[in-house]
Amino acid sequence: MANDTARFQAIIAHCKEYGFIFPSSEIYDGLSAVYDYGQYGSELKKNIRDYWWKSMTQLQDNIVGIDAAIFMHPTTWKASGHVDNFSDPMIDNKDSNKRYRVDHLIEAFADELEKAGKKDESSALLAELDRLTAASDFAGLKSLIETNRIKCAVSGTSNWTDIRQFNLMFSTKMGSVSGEDEAAEIYLRPETAQGIFVNFLNVQKTGRLKIPFGIAQVGKAFRNEIIARQFIFRMREFEQMEMQFFIRPGTEAEWYNHWKEARMNWHLSLGIPQEKYRFHDHVKLAHYAIAACDIEYEFPIGFKEVEGIHSRGDFDLTNHQTYSRKKLQYFDNEINQNYVPYVIETSIGLDRTILMVLSQAYTEEDLSTPEKADSRVVLKFPPALAPIKLAVFPLLKKDGLPEIAKELMQGCRGAFRCFYEEKDAIGKRYRRMDAIGTPFCVTIDHQTKEDQTVTIRYRDSMKQERVHIDQVKSIVENGIAL
Amino acid sequence: MANDTARFQAIIAHCKEYGFIFPSSEIYDGLSAVYDYGQYGSELKKNIRDYWWKSMTQLQDNIVGIDAAIFMHPTTWKASGHVDNFSDPMIDNKDSNKRYRVDHLIEAFADELEKAGKKDESSALLAELDRLTAASDFAGLKSLIETNRIKCAVSGTSNWTDIRQFNLMFSTKMGSVSGEDEAAEIYLRPETAQGIFVNFLNVQKTGRLKIPFGIAQVGKAFRNEIIARQFIFRMREFEQMEMQFFIRPGTEAEWYNHWKEARMNWHLSLGIPQEKYRFHDHVKLAHYAIAACDIEYEFPIGFKEVEGIHSRGDFDLTNHQTYSRKKLQYFDNEINQNYVPYVIETSIGLDRTILMVLSQAYTEEDLSTPEKADSRVVLKFPPALAPIKLAVFPLLKKDGLPEIAKELMQGCRGAFRCFYEEKDAIGKRYRRMDAIGTPFCVTIDHQTKEDQTVTIRYRDSMKQERVHIDQVKSIVENGIAL
Repeated sequence: MANDTARFQAIIAHCKEYGFIFPSSEIYDGLSAVYDYGQYGSELKKNIRDYWWKSMTQLQDNIVGIDAAIFMHPTTWKASGHVDNFSDPMIDNKDSNKRYRVDHLIEAFADELEKAGKKDESSALLAELDRLTAASDFAGLKSLIETNRIKCAVSGTSNWTDIRQFNLMFSTKMGSVSGEDEAAEIYLRPETAQGIFVNFLNVQKTGRLKIPFGIAQVGKAFRNEIIARQFIFRMREFEQMEMQFFIRPGTEAEWYNHWKEARMNWHLSLGIPQEKYRFHDHVKLAHYAIAACDIEYEFPIGFKEVEGIHSRGDFDLTNHQTYSRKKLQYFDNEINQNYVPYVIETSIGLDRTILMVLSQAYTEEDLSTPEKADSRVVLKFPPALAPIKLAVFPLLKKDGLPEIAKELMQGCRGAFRCFYEEKDAIGKRYRRMDAIGTPFCVTIDHQTKEDQTVTIRYRDSMKQERVHIDQVKSIVENGIAL
Repeated sequence: MANDTARFQAIIAHCKEYGFIFPSSEIYDGLSAVYDYGQYGSELKKNIRDYWWKSMTQLQDNIVGIDAAIFMHPTTWKASGHVDNFSDPMIDNKDSNKRYRVDHLIEAFADELEKAGKKDESSALLAELDRLTAASDFAGLKSLIETNRIKCAVSGTSNWTDIRQFNLMFSTKMGSVSGEDEAAEIYLRPETAQGIFVNFLNVQKTGRLKIPFGIAQVGKAFRNEIIARQFIFRMREFEQMEMQFFIRPGTEAEWYNHWKEARMNWHLSLGIPQEKYRFHDHVKLAHYAIAACDIEYEFPIGFKEVEGIHSRGDFDLTNHQTYSRKKLQYFDNEINQNYVPYVIETSIGLDRTILMVLSQAYTEEDLSTPEKADSRVVLKFPPALAPIKLAVFPLLKKDGLPEIAKELMQGCRGAFRCFYEEKDAIGKRYRRMDAIGTPFCVTIDHQTKEDQTVTIRYRDSMKQERVHIDQVKSIVENGIAL
């Protein structure tokens, strides 16, 4: 592979060519930063989602799931801070009509200064950026841009508009009222977490749950990103897998460390080596956080966040208490005390996890021999996550071989997803299964009719061996256990 | 059960009390016609969704799944007819400010006429309603309301506004532009089907699929219903499970019948008796339909649609061809011909299916004996769909019984969802499991320490028997196979 950008592009092209991921509404030339999962992508997605769900609920003593709606009462987002704070200061160049995030614009200029050897000026500029941003001093930020003569990369001018806030939430109107003023403005949730917080008491009481306990959720979230790019890494519509763990105040350090470790172990359980991951501790904390870190994976585009672990204190529940005027407290009978629980959150992007698994799996192999140039692309998924587990091929489309193949498939398909194909040379069929990451292929030939053996071929090693047809199901079942 | 409305209310109350379904954002007094699934509801939902997905993809020879985004290119909804046709004519009473669907208002009045013995007048009125609606003659409809002196139930007056169209799609603005005019107006999909149609060619080509084949999808859809009510039966945010089956033109009658039968068999596989279902053939067909029917289930609120089977012809693909200027054709090498495939659609509401399964399962049983009044509420779910499959109870919280119970649970939880509880009398614990529909409970007592037997208790029969602890896992596994 020449370089990482080329590798990233190759993965994107492969995803489209083999039915994993298509640009949304592609026949209408697509919708920016929105993607659709195709026949293999949707299975991969489901397998990852199910694996997370099982790990985080079924296999835990004290975590339950919920499935809250995307639509929530608008006051939710006042309480969470999203109405007031979930926005970026933006500025437009009047000549190019191009819009920039103010911090990105100034940071890029500071970078240039540094490259030009003006390290002190660069640092001073960044410090000023931080100070003015913290003070929400938009006029000051604008004059910082103007006095530094920062230019638009497109127009090359410094002809800027005023700075405006741009909220990242999508809004819509609900209700049976066509007059705009009468209908309620609601938001598409920008995160799934708040669905857990507003249901905290309902779940705790009806589930008779005792602290510490967690509530998990998987679902869509929406952010009107200014710059949405890098394939499925940053989309405007995406899916989160979040868990909020409710604890006794004072135990947050211990539980924060517990979940950092537990989540990293989950990542390693995918068979991805430790060196492809790193923790990134947040130095500048969000307003709600006591401590926070990211688990970063080394994508072809560099180390980037896949998951965040956040010690949120009682920020969310306390705010919902204030706005709803309902007590969101827990009576802890071990210490005979009422309190608003503290929360440790684990929040992983499902789409990013898919991109991680695809990036890790995508392998171009040179299979050339002195006699013949050859290569293959193979997706080395953990077998449990592969869209198709077993492909069944009759060597020929006659002599009763298809019937035997279909009977084998019939016996297996209730247990795992199978694929049947009878066209083209076997080698070609193997390669197509490599390209979608199918861990096991079985070929039925004339010998099968004599001794009930079949050829089983393993994806990663390409090793082939003959086994009894009755063994196939259990070989696959053992092979796909995670 | 006194009557069906009481039964329906009892089910709603039960769903809230036992963590199945909560009003959305309840701490903020809820959001109209939106609900959240709690800890047991979310599992029930997932089990039903997974069962449908497996039946409709994994166990089929020629159906694959996709997972398309909620956001789609806005032209999609021009092509599908939703921008122009997915709306209801509405009228407001000026005195009460109450809004009515015009057809509902006139139909209710026709009902009154009929009850008053004026059958001919009623029929004439309905015929006129049909004629004017078909002609989109809003002035005519308004004068029909006025000449009949149809009154608002709230104000009692006939002081009406003009009739206006009210589109049921939710819209939002996408893009990094705060000026309203520059951002693209997009819709939240009102059905999942179009995500399948716009991806038809991508899936067919990358999957090398041959007609007849199907594409299945599960996902959220949104409709700004005027009158959204009846709990989760009609929500503004809901989930659909749809499959579009692409066929050769001329074979639509055969495949329509095939899917009518196949889908009814799926319903019967849930263990719900035939007499609770009926087909309702559409006489008045939608503009796109060649034939259409509903599968109706007898809810406590009467027979209502759970699923629709529609013979859609080439309506959708042809329109997308027109609007996208891309050929959406298939080359059928058996007949050496290019054509736009016809489509048979099966479309089932996931939330309605949940309500159906809950309604069918909800049972109040009188267990009184001459000595003692007693009763229970039990959810007789098909075991495969139950949120929790096995509850494990140590009789006492001591003597090593919890350790044995936890060890049993440890051995089972990888295979199915378990629940552990050590508080309260065993009878009380059984009843709580009845209320959430857990098919199997196991109690560990002192005898277990001697002979490794446990008491297994069956939900529906309440029968108890002693079995060896090593048998528990396989008893449950056999019991939950669907």
